[in-house]
Amino acid sequence: MEFKNKIKAAVKSNKSLVCVGLDPDPNRMPKGTNSLLEFNKAIIEATKDLVCCYKPNSAFYEAFGPEGIEDLKLTCEYIKRVSPGIPIILDYKRADIGNTNRGYTQFAFDYLGVDAVTVSPYMGRESLSPFLNFKEKGIIILCRTSNEGSGELQDLVVEGQKLYQYLAKRISQDWNTNNNCCLVVGATYPHEMAELRGITGDSMLFLVPGIGAQGGDIEATLRAGLNSKGEGVIINSSRGIIYASGRSDYAAAARNAALELRNEINKYREIITS
Amino acid sequence: MEFKNKIKAAVKSNKSLVCVGLDPDPNRMPKGTNSLLEFNKAIIEATKDLVCCYKPNSAFYEAFGPEGIEDLKLTCEYIKRVSPGIPIILDYKRADIGNTNRGYTQFAFDYLGVDAVTVSPYMGRESLSPFLNFKEKGIIILCRTSNEGSGELQDLVVEGQKLYQYLAKRISQDWNTNNNCCLVVGATYPHEMAELRGITGDSMLFLVPGIGAQGGDIEATLRAGLNSKGEGVIINSSRGIIYASGRSDYAAAARNAALELRNEINKYREIITS
Repeated sequence: MEFKNKIKAAVKSNKSLVCVGLDPDPNRMPKGTNSLLEFNKAIIEATKDLVCCYKPNSAFYEAFGPEGIEDLKLTCEYIKRVSPGIPIILDYKRADIGNTNRGYTQFAFDYLGVDAVTVSPYMGRESLSPFLNFKEKGIIILCRTSNEGSGELQDLVVEGQKLYQYLAKRISQDWNTNNNCCLVVGATYPHEMAELRGITGDSMLFLVPGIGAQGGDIEATLRAGLNSKGEGVIINSSRGIIYASGRSDYAAAARNAALELRNEINKYREIITS
Repeated sequence: MEFKNKIKAAVKSNKSLVCVGLDPDPNRMPKGTNSLLEFNKAIIEATKDLVCCYKPNSAFYEAFGPEGIEDLKLTCEYIKRVSPGIPIILDYKRADIGNTNRGYTQFAFDYLGVDAVTVSPYMGRESLSPFLNFKEKGIIILCRTSNEGSGELQDLVVEGQKLYQYLAKRISQDWNTNNNCCLVVGATYPHEMAELRGITGDSMLFLVPGIGAQGGDIEATLRAGLNSKGEGVIINSSRGIIYASGRSDYAAAARNAALELRNEINKYREIITS
């Protein structure tokens, strides 16, 4: 099933817009946890009925060389086994010249078998075509990122609008011929998100980082980002869920945090769309 | 030794501005070659007195999961053992929010032990600070890339100049406080390269892809890119060297191709600087 439909189905079945970021950091994992995989398995087991997707960030695995990559692979396999309907987004923010990207698509789609990836737009659409040609996969393009200094390039004015707005237009009009493009839009900038919803229309899916540890506001994010059907956003939380306790009860604490986030989102979603 | 000085020393000792891109592709490696590592070792052995650096591109290794990463690690170890003065650039074009980048620096600098990395600028300087804080390492930022569609964002006009020119200024003035920034400037755009040399002054090192398979011209590139000391550029060639023959004599053919490229560069370098 293509990524956007798989997301829709998971949003419906789990009544959730929550994406859990699987970013295991041994410095923050409770003592006695023996591997990234063991930590992830407990988080997945505890949250799989509460989420619409999982998003491992590649950096947390690459840090440990081949063993980390192996844990990432086994994490993806575990998700596919215990919650086959839940799509996996590999957050790896890649982009290179055409040919070279094939190595990155091979890693994500052949080796790991994920449903979607994040990519960086600086080299232009042409460079990303090896990604964009995967019709069934979600290609989630950095547009307005959640970090503090994101405006340094993204807010520059080009042709009478900001660069990220210009980019969102290009993506909607030119890059999205396979209807598989999505955007990364940080929760830390709800005003910008509302403008982007206006630019892209209802059908564009936003992956929204920045809730929780980074300070994004849930209600403002939903008011800005939801499309007219009360959909079209995926709210990611990583640290706020996976380190909710930081102790041996981390899985139960993650479940509580995910449940709370899901319910809070659904509460506002109902208010906003009613 | 810090990256830029290590490059200078290698340029001097091997009389070479040539960087060999270690991008092994099993579809193009000669029959009978059993691994990426075996192929790389032969290339390194055949060219180590002719180059100023090696540049493995991460995509070609990630494609094969943990085994590919292991081959990348062993390739880096091999370079350090057989030609300890030759720096290694990991071409991985990464960037993420601050915290997350630590996974990427851990992979490049702790696990692989490379001397420099390529990074992507779209998220701004603040996001890259975990990279920029490594004073001894080269942080090589995508500025004007060599691919066909690179102008789509990079040529947009911001504040009266093109985005890549604006970026080069920001990098020179604000990002380069540790004097460890370098730029990726494609050989396919010599006019743009000359402007960038004007913007950044003599001290900025350009990593130049796009010679050979991508069609960049050596003389035009050197006229545009060399600083007033006849230095300041590293010319990368990947496919043109490592697949010079595509048969079992690939190592000897790579040596010939690297020698020819080195000599042609040095010929023009002498003409231009005399």
